[in-house]
Amino acid sequence: MIVPTILLELSHHQVEVAETLIGVGSFVVIFVAARTLAELLVRFQLPSILGELIAGVLIGASGLHLVVPPETHAELNAGMLRLLGGLADIPPSEIQGIYEESFPILKGISTLGLYALLFLTGLESELDELIAVGAQASTVALAGVVLPFALGTAGLMAIFHVDLIPAVFAGASMTATSIGITASVFSELEYLKTREGQIVIGAAVLDDILGIVILAVVVALGVGGDLEAGPIIKLCAAAALFVVVALVLSRTAAPGFDWLLDRLKAPGEVIVASFLVLCLCCFAATAIGLEAALGAFAAGLILSSSKHTKAIQGSVVPLVSLFATIFFVLIGTSMDLSVINPADPANRAGLVVAAFLLVAAIAGKLVSGWSFLSDKPTNRLVVGLGMMPRGEVGLIFLGLGTSAGLLTPSLEAAILLMVIGTTFLAPVLLRLVLSRKDPVAEQPA
Amino acid sequence: MIVPTILLELSHHQVEVAETLIGVGSFVVIFVAARTLAELLVRFQLPSILGELIAGVLIGASGLHLVVPPETHAELNAGMLRLLGGLADIPPSEIQGIYEESFPILKGISTLGLYALLFLTGLESELDELIAVGAQASTVALAGVVLPFALGTAGLMAIFHVDLIPAVFAGASMTATSIGITASVFSELEYLKTREGQIVIGAAVLDDILGIVILAVVVALGVGGDLEAGPIIKLCAAAALFVVVALVLSRTAAPGFDWLLDRLKAPGEVIVASFLVLCLCCFAATAIGLEAALGAFAAGLILSSSKHTKAIQGSVVPLVSLFATIFFVLIGTSMDLSVINPADPANRAGLVVAAFLLVAAIAGKLVSGWSFLSDKPTNRLVVGLGMMPRGEVGLIFLGLGTSAGLLTPSLEAAILLMVIGTTFLAPVLLRLVLSRKDPVAEQPA
Repeated sequence: MIVPTILLELSHHQVEVAETLIGVGSFVVIFVAARTLAELLVRFQLPSILGELIAGVLIGASGLHLVVPPETHAELNAGMLRLLGGLADIPPSEIQGIYEESFPILKGISTLGLYALLFLTGLESELDELIAVGAQASTVALAGVVLPFALGTAGLMAIFHVDLIPAVFAGASMTATSIGITASVFSELEYLKTREGQIVIGAAVLDDILGIVILAVVVALGVGGDLEAGPIIKLCAAAALFVVVALVLSRTAAPGFDWLLDRLKAPGEVIVASFLVLCLCCFAATAIGLEAALGAFAAGLILSSSKHTKAIQGSVVPLVSLFATIFFVLIGTSMDLSVINPADPANRAGLVVAAFLLVAAIAGKLVSGWSFLSDKPTNRLVVGLGMMPRGEVGLIFLGLGTSAGLLTPSLEAAILLMVIGTTFLAPVLLRLVLSRKDPVAEQPA
Repeated sequence: MIVPTILLELSHHQVEVAETLIGVGSFVVIFVAARTLAELLVRFQLPSILGELIAGVLIGASGLHLVVPPETHAELNAGMLRLLGGLADIPPSEIQGIYEESFPILKGISTLGLYALLFLTGLESELDELIAVGAQASTVALAGVVLPFALGTAGLMAIFHVDLIPAVFAGASMTATSIGITASVFSELEYLKTREGQIVIGAAVLDDILGIVILAVVVALGVGGDLEAGPIIKLCAAAALFVVVALVLSRTAAPGFDWLLDRLKAPGEVIVASFLVLCLCCFAATAIGLEAALGAFAAGLILSSSKHTKAIQGSVVPLVSLFATIFFVLIGTSMDLSVINPADPANRAGLVVAAFLLVAAIAGKLVSGWSFLSDKPTNRLVVGLGMMPRGEVGLIFLGLGTSAGLLTPSLEAAILLMVIGTTFLAPVLLRLVLSRKDPVAEQPA
């Protein structure tokens, strides 16, 4: 009985070889594509994140099929299957299965990148400024949620005669700003610490929280229209508690962290201690029903008044450069651009709805920039544009609606196009508007 | 039909919440344990890696069951199951399954840590010194493979009347030094760039290559004693080619890398370009049948003469601090220390064999320190001790032998104890020997 078991083991070794080749091979493809595009766009003064998104589209399910998230149900590139199969001595037909099984590792690493990016965003935030613009940020968040939702839902029902539930779902998918994309663009253009930057970051965090509440409401509505107030109130209370605790800790916890750090002697203490705070905050946020990403931002905010901020920043930046890139590329890989093609008659109904949703999504967020009172000069266009990208949050709503069977194909395509449009347009438009002035001159005194 | 699908979706959301809690929760447990132990041991002048290994044992399958690799077949801590189940609103009994499914992500991140550590080791190596000690390193590698193998196999057959195949397998498991543990200890004690450090690193790399060849031979023997020369020769040729190409590129490729780096404009170019070289080398090494970890070392070596070495180092160190820690903690979590307990009569036979294997394993590698001629003063004890830890490589052999049904339970326990003994003793003994002198005085002129 020994022989077959060893053969089995050998093939287990082959699977491991294939997994390693898939893993490091995916990294190579992702970084070569992302870097090439980023270098190209940076030369046109465009943010590198746009290059990462486009790179994802090019290598992903709509492009070369070199990196295909399992949820897209796309087949891996045939040449890649043959290459990997040949190198690992495994039939190419079995590579697809191994690929899909090991994909969660890449996805997990990219999620770590998102957390690192939001942690860095919190760390680089000006806490005093963030609190000072709290009222403005809240108004922007609320307006930026209510306007696109109302415009989208009402328009779909009135103009396109869509049913209530799918219309509500599509409207909900237009509410949440992708804080990751906005933070990345503002950070690269060194605009994060401006008044506008802090309003947008604050509003994006708050509208992420609102988005979670809306999601709970929409899902409850979808289940049968029987809206229970209990869980929703609990979620709102948890969110309020989270914001208060995060702000209090931001004001008070840094000295304790510094005290501990000064007493640690084993090497690597700065990054490990910071990572620990990050993980604890992500755990807490998830435990009370919020997004882990919000915890990551709170963790950065809490450590933003530490005296070790520079050292923390220095050790988190490499994580962001590597893993947040993967996150944005993966967003691109999961976008199915074939629905855009107007030559395909099946796409046309979707394209008309999409054009409407896109306009509503852009207008709703843009107008939110004019929703607040301000005693200081504020570039309202920058605020509105900063709130525009829907990115991964929109895709999550879309995935949820699709798998619940709530959406028609043309509505699915329209939501996807709304997400793609806002996501790709926002960095371009922001860059155009921000390049007109010197960011330093805009810094609050 | 909408209702059940949405409920299904809701539960999919709950699974994601559980996965996030498991993921960041595991990070918290791992880093709290590893840091606490590392801080303790550093105060006793012991390397922090020993603390990470012990931390793994304490939280792992032999301890609190807070982090349990699926291959140990251990149940997650009951309190942890209840906590996570309660927070994610999932029956605790289902958490174990979700845990095992998401464990590959943690494992994947830890593997990235090993690669980063070996990349850093290559980067911090003195290429000229490494080439200068090439002859010594080769002799140490060969002696350190042949002696433990011969001692172990012959002793098991002569004294304990073990059959040929299991004896050969146990002997083979004693051959490969854990380059990760050695590199980590030498680096922390700032001993990596010394003559002894470079001999040990060079020898560990070469004996890793020899280990792969031995593994191929042993597995072929196990299958039926019919040893085919073809694949073995091919593997040896690939290994030789790999070493030659890596050395040539180390001498020549850095200027090209620097040229490219000077032309990149998108932010994060240093870490991304270095990571790309790392991934390419890992891919190449795996593709020709070697370990990806060897590729990581070669990548570091290739970039060690870049003019950006300091910047590369600065951005890789955080990755090592975070992820290599996870790697070493996971080694600890998968060790089953219950076989050590002498109070259990079932363990006694294994303990006697273990004592023999441990002595043979230590003696074989120690003697390798005296196996070479040297025209310069060299601390042979440091070389011998540096080659001692078997770590993860020994565990891989053990896992292979166990799942192939080749080993008796007492032999399994004995191999495990040999691995544990050499792994835990090496950092302690190295620290004792190295603390006696000033490492800087040992640096080659």
